[in-house]
Amino acid sequence: MRTLVKNGTIVTAESEYKADILIVDEKITSIGTNLEGPFDRILDAEGKYVLPGGVDNHAHFEALNTDGITTNEPYATTWVALQGGTTTIVDFCTNEPGMNLVDSVNYRLNVRAKGKVAPDIAIHACCNDFTDETVGEIKKLVEMGVPTMKLFLAYKGTSLYMDDSKLLACLEEAGKQGMTMMVHAENPDVLDKCRNDAAATGHYEPKYHYMTRPPYGEAEAVSRAIRFADAMHCPMCIVHVSCIEAGEEIRKARAEGKAVIGETCPHYLVLDKHKMDHPDWHIAARWICSPALRDKEDQDYLWKALNKDWLSICGSDNSGIPQAQKNWGWDEEHQRCDFRMVPNGCPGAGDRMNALWTYGVAAGRMTRQKFVDVCCTTPAKLNGIYPRKGTIQVGADADLVLFDPDYKGTITLETNPTGVEYNVFEGLEQIGRADTVLLRGSVVVENGRYLGEVTEVVADGITYQGCTSANGKFIPGKPYGLGYDLLKRS
Amino acid sequence: MRTLVKNGTIVTAESEYKADILIVDEKITSIGTNLEGPFDRILDAEGKYVLPGGVDNHAHFEALNTDGITTNEPYATTWVALQGGTTTIVDFCTNEPGMNLVDSVNYRLNVRAKGKVAPDIAIHACCNDFTDETVGEIKKLVEMGVPTMKLFLAYKGTSLYMDDSKLLACLEEAGKQGMTMMVHAENPDVLDKCRNDAAATGHYEPKYHYMTRPPYGEAEAVSRAIRFADAMHCPMCIVHVSCIEAGEEIRKARAEGKAVIGETCPHYLVLDKHKMDHPDWHIAARWICSPALRDKEDQDYLWKALNKDWLSICGSDNSGIPQAQKNWGWDEEHQRCDFRMVPNGCPGAGDRMNALWTYGVAAGRMTRQKFVDVCCTTPAKLNGIYPRKGTIQVGADADLVLFDPDYKGTITLETNPTGVEYNVFEGLEQIGRADTVLLRGSVVVENGRYLGEVTEVVADGITYQGCTSANGKFIPGKPYGLGYDLLKRS
Amino acid sequence: MRTLVKNGTIVTAESEYKADILIVDEKITSIGTNLEGPFDRILDAEGKYVLPGGVDNHAHFEALNTDGITTNEPYATTWVALQGGTTTIVDFCTNEPGMNLVDSVNYRLNVRAKGKVAPDIAIHACCNDFTDETVGEIKKLVEMGVPTMKLFLAYKGTSLYMDDSKLLACLEEAGKQGMTMMVHAENPDVLDKCRNDAAATGHYEPKYHYMTRPPYGEAEAVSRAIRFADAMHCPMCIVHVSCIEAGEEIRKARAEGKAVIGETCPHYLVLDKHKMDHPDWHIAARWICSPALRDKEDQDYLWKALNKDWLSICGSDNSGIPQAQKNWGWDEEHQRCDFRMVPNGCPGAGDRMNALWTYGVAAGRMTRQKFVDVCCTTPAKLNGIYPRKGTIQVGADADLVLFDPDYKGTITLETNPTGVEYNVFEGLEQIGRADTVLLRGSVVVENGRYLGEVTEVVADGITYQGCTSANGKFIPGKPYGLGYDLLKRS
Amino acid sequence: MRTLVKNGTIVTAESEYKADILIVDEKITSIGTNLEGPFDRILDAEGKYVLPGGVDNHAHFEALNTDGITTNEPYATTWVALQGGTTTIVDFCTNEPGMNLVDSVNYRLNVRAKGKVAPDIAIHACCNDFTDETVGEIKKLVEMGVPTMKLFLAYKGTSLYMDDSKLLACLEEAGKQGMTMMVHAENPDVLDKCRNDAAATGHYEPKYHYMTRPPYGEAEAVSRAIRFADAMHCPMCIVHVSCIEAGEEIRKARAEGKAVIGETCPHYLVLDKHKMDHPDWHIAARWICSPALRDKEDQDYLWKALNKDWLSICGSDNSGIPQAQKNWGWDEEHQRCDFRMVPNGCPGAGDRMNALWTYGVAAGRMTRQKFVDVCCTTPAKLNGIYPRKGTIQVGADADLVLFDPDYKGTITLETNPTGVEYNVFEGLEQIGRADTVLLRGSVVVENGRYLGEVTEVVADGITYQGCTSANGKFIPGKPYGLGYDLLKRS
Repeated sequence: MRTLVKNGTIVTAESEYKADILIVDEKITSIGTNLEGPFDRILDAEGKYVLPGGVDNHAHFEALNTDGITTNEPYATTWVALQGGTTTIVDFCTNEPGMNLVDSVNYRLNVRAKGKVAPDIAIHACCNDFTDETVGEIKKLVEMGVPTMKLFLAYKGTSLYMDDSKLLACLEEAGKQGMTMMVHAENPDVLDKCRNDAAATGHYEPKYHYMTRPPYGEAEAVSRAIRFADAMHCPMCIVHVSCIEAGEEIRKARAEGKAVIGETCPHYLVLDKHKMDHPDWHIAARWICSPALRDKEDQDYLWKALNKDWLSICGSDNSGIPQAQKNWGWDEEHQRCDFRMVPNGCPGAGDRMNALWTYGVAAGRMTRQKFVDVCCTTPAKLNGIYPRKGTIQVGADADLVLFDPDYKGTITLETNPTGVEYNVFEGLEQIGRADTVLLRGSVVVENGRYLGEVTEVVADGITYQGCTSANGKFIPGKPYGLGYDLLKRS
Repeated sequence: MRTLVKNGTIVTAESEYKADILIVDEKITSIGTNLEGPFDRILDAEGKYVLPGGVDNHAHFEALNTDGITTNEPYATTWVALQGGTTTIVDFCTNEPGMNLVDSVNYRLNVRAKGKVAPDIAIHACCNDFTDETVGEIKKLVEMGVPTMKLFLAYKGTSLYMDDSKLLACLEEAGKQGMTMMVHAENPDVLDKCRNDAAATGHYEPKYHYMTRPPYGEAEAVSRAIRFADAMHCPMCIVHVSCIEAGEEIRKARAEGKAVIGETCPHYLVLDKHKMDHPDWHIAARWICSPALRDKEDQDYLWKALNKDWLSICGSDNSGIPQAQKNWGWDEEHQRCDFRMVPNGCPGAGDRMNALWTYGVAAGRMTRQKFVDVCCTTPAKLNGIYPRKGTIQVGADADLVLFDPDYKGTITLETNPTGVEYNVFEGLEQIGRADTVLLRGSVVVENGRYLGEVTEVVADGITYQGCTSANGKFIPGKPYGLGYDLLKRS
Repeated sequence: MRTLVKNGTIVTAESEYKADILIVDEKITSIGTNLEGPFDRILDAEGKYVLPGGVDNHAHFEALNTDGITTNEPYATTWVALQGGTTTIVDFCTNEPGMNLVDSVNYRLNVRAKGKVAPDIAIHACCNDFTDETVGEIKKLVEMGVPTMKLFLAYKGTSLYMDDSKLLACLEEAGKQGMTMMVHAENPDVLDKCRNDAAATGHYEPKYHYMTRPPYGEAEAVSRAIRFADAMHCPMCIVHVSCIEAGEEIRKARAEGKAVIGETCPHYLVLDKHKMDHPDWHIAARWICSPALRDKEDQDYLWKALNKDWLSICGSDNSGIPQAQKNWGWDEEHQRCDFRMVPNGCPGAGDRMNALWTYGVAAGRMTRQKFVDVCCTTPAKLNGIYPRKGTIQVGADADLVLFDPDYKGTITLETNPTGVEYNVFEGLEQIGRADTVLLRGSVVVENGRYLGEVTEVVADGITYQGCTSANGKFIPGKPYGLGYDLLKRS
Repeated sequence: MRTLVKNGTIVTAESEYKADILIVDEKITSIGTNLEGPFDRILDAEGKYVLPGGVDNHAHFEALNTDGITTNEPYATTWVALQGGTTTIVDFCTNEPGMNLVDSVNYRLNVRAKGKVAPDIAIHACCNDFTDETVGEIKKLVEMGVPTMKLFLAYKGTSLYMDDSKLLACLEEAGKQGMTMMVHAENPDVLDKCRNDAAATGHYEPKYHYMTRPPYGEAEAVSRAIRFADAMHCPMCIVHVSCIEAGEEIRKARAEGKAVIGETCPHYLVLDKHKMDHPDWHIAARWICSPALRDKEDQDYLWKALNKDWLSICGSDNSGIPQAQKNWGWDEEHQRCDFRMVPNGCPGAGDRMNALWTYGVAAGRMTRQKFVDVCCTTPAKLNGIYPRKGTIQVGADADLVLFDPDYKGTITLETNPTGVEYNVFEGLEQIGRADTVLLRGSVVVENGRYLGEVTEVVADGITYQGCTSANGKFIPGKPYGLGYDLLKRS
């Protein structure tokens, strides 16, 4: 199968140029002009940018909450990522109840995700059950293609919580094995104090979610995590940075040459906390995520931070929690909403690139190169799947987005599906979209629509919009990813 | 003419992969596997790295000193750059006596350099005669493909010296026209004070060159230049950064997101000031350059700074001053050497990449990607000649280096010519070399030797090793180079 | 003569306590309770704070402008300082035309000031005529009790301007002799550029004074001066800091332990630049001083900076320029005001402490200890006249202020004379005042009124309010003042 | 009783001057010259400095270890503080077993310390049993004259350990009540990790004490504590800062104006970690304290930090642990020393001022003013007992040291007793000593010797050198001490 993508403008993190691309089966085999046929298929990219398929550094599908119950969307909904231009998701694999991480990764790949993931998938291990075995698993995870792990510094009192002792132990071993450590950085005691204080004074509404997650609690955990990573010689990725205070800790550490990489998310860039002021708490609850949405000045900072490379990745932190689960926020006993009971998370895998292009590139706040860098290239490098993913290069997987910069629309659930019943960006203007998407040489999106069949699927009694067939492959990551470059040289 | 470079490992600033390169005439037209012939010529790069041709951000050939007399090497010696893997030099054009900058650039391109430059050549304007006309010339320079200008903050009392008033005026206009400003940053009053103090106490030996150029004098000028560039919204390149203090000013400014880019040079990375302690002042004088060579800890810092992107470019600051001119340091009247009379500068265009690979890449201090970045890609971007130059990409000029990492040798004038009678790196070990070099599709170096004829050429009564034919072209630069990305997005 | 000050609350920079003070002739001989008589005079300070007499670090009386013409008030007007609680002024002595600094100091003390200065007076040398002799004068100045010197980094093109060469030379020698260097830190080229740009576009109104003195011009000079002082091992005082940018340079230098001390002035703390928007340019011109008045946020910063010891002194920068001289701003030829022709300066010696107490202490922004520190103690230490001046201590001069915190009034020329026809704080509320003031044991102010005779005095054809008798003494300063403590230890 | 101290040179934190001091009973009533008699006693201080009695911010006597067992010296040994010039100790009161803090303070004052403390005593509460009651006790503690509390951030797994939740709760309430919070800042998980790693690899010798307390563990806790104190608007004192990394956190926080005050101790200034390399582990164990002794460069930093006011207090952290308890380090089961079993602490109350004068003032590293500041004045201010203690002022307690700068000796247990069988400074040179000491007007030390009777006292079966009578009083502290000045003014 020989496919030619012709007349497009190729955009990479580094450059932009006109050339045609020859795909043989799943791979890019040539980039050039006057490439010789025969071709089985020709895609005309005239007027379009040809981008690498997006790599979403931060996706939660079929996530297990701290009780081992799955919250948020099943893998069948991952087709929305493809429609949004993302061809690889890096999904978090927490421990299945009673399983260690290695087994949990295998279970997830071979059972949960088997045949259900529309884009390609790489895996972050995510420790939810630290045992005597855990540190020893790091080497095995790396060997099986999982060179990243996430630790939660928040959620004290649950099995997700990693105290400093566990954090240090994991960092030390990770640094030896070429693993990059990721952290959810919020100080649990700060949050608990604020939440308890709010409750003690009778405040349970959704807006208390943001009022009880002060930036200093995020910044403290970021600062501590960076210090320990540095001491243990392990590169670190701080995920979902939401605010100035946390960003500044990363900025300063990077200015000192420390091996730390920051990620932010589209909702922190585009939305602010007042979404949670909605009078109907069921709706307000949709924007309850962690860390909380912040202020306008934090948004400005985050855009600047991406441009200045203080932050380096835009991941979705996709957590498509259906309304039925958001409604767990109802405290039946006291007949009131309690923000503390609302599951945290926003869907975003589908709109990550749409939001970033519209409010970044189209708004003149970001170059196309930087867009590709933070959406595709740097996440691929961090996860050890570059240059197979994340760039347009001979030998790479033929994951391509023919991006139409002239599209203009409004974000609605119809045009911008999320897998659940709502879109947190609903009503916002959209400029540009992924018109055509190729996954390993196959066209999976045309005219901005996923080509596979989508139907209602039921998981745990909840109905989602899911695809019926899926061809995503597991992409094993190599160790010693991006952060090690910063770490190892002089 | 169709040339195939096959079996090599392509190295860019971003990536590394195996692929063949098809060159049609002067351009890269395809990169791929199984590229179809016919081919007029096939170069087998098996076991070699295929690098973009080097771009030397900082070359002085046929430089005019402050009296308008040419010091250092004529253009005929530029073949040494090719032999060292550099296919484009960015040369400084100072005012010809009595000419404005625009005329001087034309004169240089059409008279001085005409037919004599072996590699391709781009131009930095270099103001040596600030007049009422100068600011107005900036727009014209940009239009003629000269989007950079260098100002000397040192050398008070000569026409090269730009006081703050001139600096501000140029920065303001440059920022409007998309020009990037370069500065030689040393505080002249600091230097004069120290030099005069040394002389007043009877110290004239070459080592007083370094003893009278304290790092704080360099750092002060860097700090001031950055502040003014920031105020005038003009990106700035600080050239030939030599020491910790100056580097720290740049590191801090970049950490704050300012549009400043730092360059260092191979001699600051590899050599230290004690070269000037040589008992024979004629020899010691060879290492007299500005700023002065520094200490071992400065070298360590500079390597780290390149790796951490505090500094971003390695330029040669090539100033091949023949021994006869170095000997101007003899004070006939007092029958002694006077370091103040020695022309400043070291040759380095030929050994820039050799030195950086040997003591960087081969020594494990730098990745191959970073090597390409600082030697080729970033200088091309800064000068607005990217992606025509500085990377390997379809549509780019076919400037390629087939680099042999297995070469082992010793740097001597024989193997590593400089155009003058000495090599400042003489006697140092060398690992790796440019085995084959293509300039716009033509092979100009084979087996590490320049293919053209080299013979004695005489300029101003001094004999150099020059080439007899040269095919270098002028490469006009586009405005709004690299620094503007840092500047414009926030 | 034995005077007892009883029942007061003594306030020093360090402490506050109730005790009586016995003065014998000019000195404090005992502090205690139940001090034994007999007493020639008893002053009851019940309900009052007993403060050390104020030390004004920055007074210009009978200043010579760059043409050698006296601008601003004659010494006869110095009684206003006493009435405002200041018992020692540190006055600037610039070169008399054709005289060196040593002779100028002698001339000033023995001729100009002789018998005319109401408070005590110490001297800063102020170089206005840098010659081959100047550096050599530093040792002599120190020996004659002048351990401070001020250099102007602004005003290029006049004899006041000190380029880096002169600055470095003076710093080096000063550091050896125990002199503390003071600088007026504004970059002259920045100012000239802005002023010329304004004029070139037809803008001459007073508000262009502040629009053409951007904070970065002040900050640049501060940064440079600190760097050079540090390199030359000479402590430095940055006078009249007006804005955040300049303050931050000092804050950072102090955080690194550098020997730099910052002064701000009451008008920068209390007034903002919009005073210069007054529609009558004659009036607007009264607030034209250098650096210019700034914004509200700069005021907030300066208060904070004093409290945090980023800045350490509040000096008046008294320059009481009579309206007739402010009117020099009229450009007769073009029949318009030209802000560039208005002499710079505001009177403030009388209201320095009033303004700081009202808007600092009474407003809850400053402790009484800090008030004494910045108004009395630290300036005395800087100038080497501590503990003779600047504190309340046995053996010190009996310079005391019985301060009434309950006074409430409005600042008017009547109650708050300046020596000239206007008060730049006119109309502002005042809380607290110096009720009684003693200068070396003599009561010179009672009920807030100077006790000496005040009458019209004419100087250079202009009428001022002057005193007819004056008992101020020259107070020689000792070298190695405050800054040397910071410099010399580890 | 009227005592005259005559002919001395009074030294305060701010000044130095000759004057006599009249003491009536326990108070200073006059300072002056020619003070009138009659006098009951005259002390001639000719040739001596008259210093305020020392205030030791950090004394542990009859400390309760985490099991409630008293470790270290009984109060009867406090006479050594007097002999060393310290007239007030601020002692830590941890919870008595089963008692809350308020009761524990009362028990300590009324039972443990009753009649046994030779100098005056103020109290820091020290939480060792955080209960629901603890936060509510803060107000009561403040009311009873205990306006400071110390929390241990180390020692996880014991009741001393305060996690972030407890830390935040205490800070919040303390900030409301005018209490200043003190912290022992070491990260427990870092220490545990390192200690366990050492043990796991068979390393138990005393030197592993310092090898397992890395500076980053101290710095992390300092950073976190400062951040939380800032968020909770509570001033903080970081005690026993031992190293550069920790000091830098404080330096930076202070540079930003945060209300944090740092203390270091004489052993960190004068001794280094290699003391613990002694081949006899019983002896090596004497220098096991927390944090650990550090390197020479840390010592240099700490001296500089005191001089630059990055650190502001020198406290002894006196923990005179008798050899019999140091010997607990013997692991009987494995027949080896185990550094983890050695009780931590060094005696220092007696030599705090001797060491600081000798290696600070006499060595030219510190002024006498700074000496008084860090040994007397600032600790008194921090603890709310200034100006009653910590300075020489009318109305203050007559706690005076007649300090003989000409004394020269060697530190030995005989001349420099510690209460236990060894002196950690043994063998070091000493210059200067407290010749005569007055406590509230009574002479308690003469010719460098405590005047009271000293005899063997037995506590918990261990013999100490104790005094038989003691007149120390409890000195209640006022709230809103020094740190609040930094906090409240902006």
